Amino acid sequence: MRVELLCTGDELVTGLITDTNSPWFEARLFELGVKVERIQLVGDVRPDITHALLEAASRADVVLVSGGLGPTMDDFTLECAAAAEGVPLVEHPEVVAWLRERYAKRNIPLTPGVYRMARVPQGSEVVRNPVGSAPLVIQRLGRSQLFFVPGVPREYRALAEGEVLPRIRAALQKDPERVYRAFRLLRTVGIPESQLDATVAPLVSQHPRVVFGFRTHAPENHLKLMATAPTQAEADAALAAAEAASRQLLGAAVFGADEEEYAPVLARLLTQAGATLATAESCTGGLIAQELTAISGASAFFIGGAVSYSEKMKMAWAGVPSEVLARHTAVSRETAIAMAEGVSAACETTYGLSVTGYAGPTGGTPEDPVGTVYCALAARGSPTRCERFSITGDRDRVRLFAATSALELLRHHLLTGTSAP
Amino acid sequence: MRVELLCTGDELVTGLITDTNSPWFEARLFELGVKVERIQLVGDVRPDITHALLEAASRADVVLVSGGLGPTMDDFTLECAAAAEGVPLVEHPEVVAWLRERYAKRNIPLTPGVYRMARVPQGSEVVRNPVGSAPLVIQRLGRSQLFFVPGVPREYRALAEGEVLPRIRAALQKDPERVYRAFRLLRTVGIPESQLDATVAPLVSQHPRVVFGFRTHAPENHLKLMATAPTQAEADAALAAAEAASRQLLGAAVFGADEEEYAPVLARLLTQAGATLATAESCTGGLIAQELTAISGASAFFIGGAVSYSEKMKMAWAGVPSEVLARHTAVSRETAIAMAEGVSAACETTYGLSVTGYAGPTGGTPEDPVGTVYCALAARGSPTRCERFSITGDRDRVRLFAATSALELLRHHLLTGTSAP
Repeated sequence: MRVELLCTGDELVTGLITDTNSPWFEARLFELGVKVERIQLVGDVRPDITHALLEAASRADVVLVSGGLGPTMDDFTLECAAAAEGVPLVEHPEVVAWLRERYAKRNIPLTPGVYRMARVPQGSEVVRNPVGSAPLVIQRLGRSQLFFVPGVPREYRALAEGEVLPRIRAALQKDPERVYRAFRLLRTVGIPESQLDATVAPLVSQHPRVVFGFRTHAPENHLKLMATAPTQAEADAALAAAEAASRQLLGAAVFGADEEEYAPVLARLLTQAGATLATAESCTGGLIAQELTAISGASAFFIGGAVSYSEKMKMAWAGVPSEVLARHTAVSRETAIAMAEGVSAACETTYGLSVTGYAGPTGGTPEDPVGTVYCALAARGSPTRCERFSITGDRDRVRLFAATSALELLRHHLLTGTSAP
Repeated sequence: MRVELLCTGDELVTGLITDTNSPWFEARLFELGVKVERIQLVGDVRPDITHALLEAASRADVVLVSGGLGPTMDDFTLECAAAAEGVPLVEHPEVVAWLRERYAKRNIPLTPGVYRMARVPQGSEVVRNPVGSAPLVIQRLGRSQLFFVPGVPREYRALAEGEVLPRIRAALQKDPERVYRAFRLLRTVGIPESQLDATVAPLVSQHPRVVFGFRTHAPENHLKLMATAPTQAEADAALAAAEAASRQLLGAAVFGADEEEYAPVLARLLTQAGATLATAESCTGGLIAQELTAISGASAFFIGGAVSYSEKMKMAWAGVPSEVLARHTAVSRETAIAMAEGVSAACETTYGLSVTGYAGPTGGTPEDPVGTVYCALAARGSPTRCERFSITGDRDRVRLFAATSALELLRHHLLTGTSAP
């Protein structure tokens, strides 16, 4: 199956935004054994879009077209699609009904522009957008099937995942040249990419059907395993063997696989242990609290987070004694420990987690320069543990890795169970 | 001048890496008044690259081609270029000398593969790579000039900046059709895209030299203004007029322009007012605190943030009376007001900002379903203001828009100065 992608929008050809939709979709297709043959990005110029549609349709079986489906005057991708096919644009009554319903629910006035989203090439199919206004439009052009989706990543992904990929998967079932692939992403934290590579390098020759790939997605590093074989069973078996060998070498650095994200994994460990958590954050400023509370059901384990950005609030909310601050300063092992213990006591939780450090770009001392971070974990029934980290990079990076380092103290504690909750 | 970009490499069509070179180059060209017409990404497939080269050359004056110039067997872009022109590949003695010098200096053995980098289409020009091995190759193909650069971002940028852009700039000086551009991005919050479009629609016909564009970047919506004119002065004047008219219509919904981000704008307003802030967050779980503390120097105005996820901590940290919680529940106007006032009192700040709501997917009541959020602003010397919002979408979206809604209460207060700090 030949697949091409066509992305439209001036913002994509003027450097305003980077196309992150295509790599995501390419990777999803690659898992199905399909390598995208060409990606094209064109600006908001009618003849350019029309030509690109015709060219892609002349080469590919499937073309995913994104962008230019919205309510504004620079949204005219479907006009070009109609021109390419030589049919008129017609207002689709079902889409009109969806739009009326959606806008009424949100109390947004239905401006005339909104109806642009209901005008589709005559004869094309429409599918409701579950997370936005503009529908998925499916058009036949010559031998090719064209799928039109909005460029907004949330809507692009919802429609590509929920509607486009299932249709491609069904078509592949009938493809005689099909190869089978099996895919696993092992997600690690706390191990640099070069070290991850060196650790699994000895496995490569032992697993000839599996390609080992690497991807950095700070603060995580991912190991991608892709097996290719003439049958699905053989691909699955090759993958399982390579995954087991990799996990053996990487141990607890692997926190999850495939779509598993860090915070939900940690949340599950906390919930399984019947434990509760409070946080006291200085340089990370709420990053840990917001990551954990992004999970639905966080209230089962997350009791409170103190963003104690000033010394005053370190004392008031995290119970840090003024003598500790005076003698050791706000960025110190002693303060981190007092914050973790203090916030845990204030919130009456099983665990208290704290971070204090110099995120930069200014601040720091000769002994504790910018990038120095102290993280502490207070655990009921265990001695409080504190670690010092030296993190390189800009403010955002220091904050991100500081948050992760703190969470890793907790995750490893929960995994090894060195203390009763 | 018509410019196209062609990027080659399997990693670009399988989702392994995102093409960040093109957006960078597009932006540099756009500053020169040139909008790239098309970007193509193709995998490591000889006929696909050859066809894409011929197609781009048939349309564009300049094509920047990247990737596939290295020493390994999957580097064959110049082979395709030679095939497209119908000339042989020849070893260029100057490039051989550069490679020998470079490899000797680094004590790397000159494997046979290295000489691949010296074989260029007969008749093409070569320019030494200041930061890598593969040279810049310049080929004439029909009416078009093709520039071949490595895909490695460091080398791509060095050659594009140092060699390709100066040649394009020189050509533009002689271009009788040269146009000049001026660009402004106006960033808004609190106004849906369709309404933004409808608001500025009357301006479009009054500013014929300006293209009005729109972009959604939740929770923000952006208005893009691009002026085109025969001189830079006229482009600047046309842009200034369109910007002034747009700002007039949009008022305080515009929080910044171009690269200005939301949190730094708010931070500046707070700093200018000599004001301080404390936050009490329930459903946003630290999102507001972390956004504000991401700014270097946040300690000048941000004193503390209570992530009072439990009722207990709403009482302890944000001073919410237990009667208020018992009578009105944690998600109510009364609780939001008590949180804002309480956290401001605890932190002794000019302002206290609070959020409480149902982020979903579960929770809510018939009167206050999922998506209901109460935001309150306590300002010293003014009555506390509380607003109720109904936000649609998933948990992430509710949290994001809840945080923005709260921050907007503060920004509008700071702009209108209805109370003394």
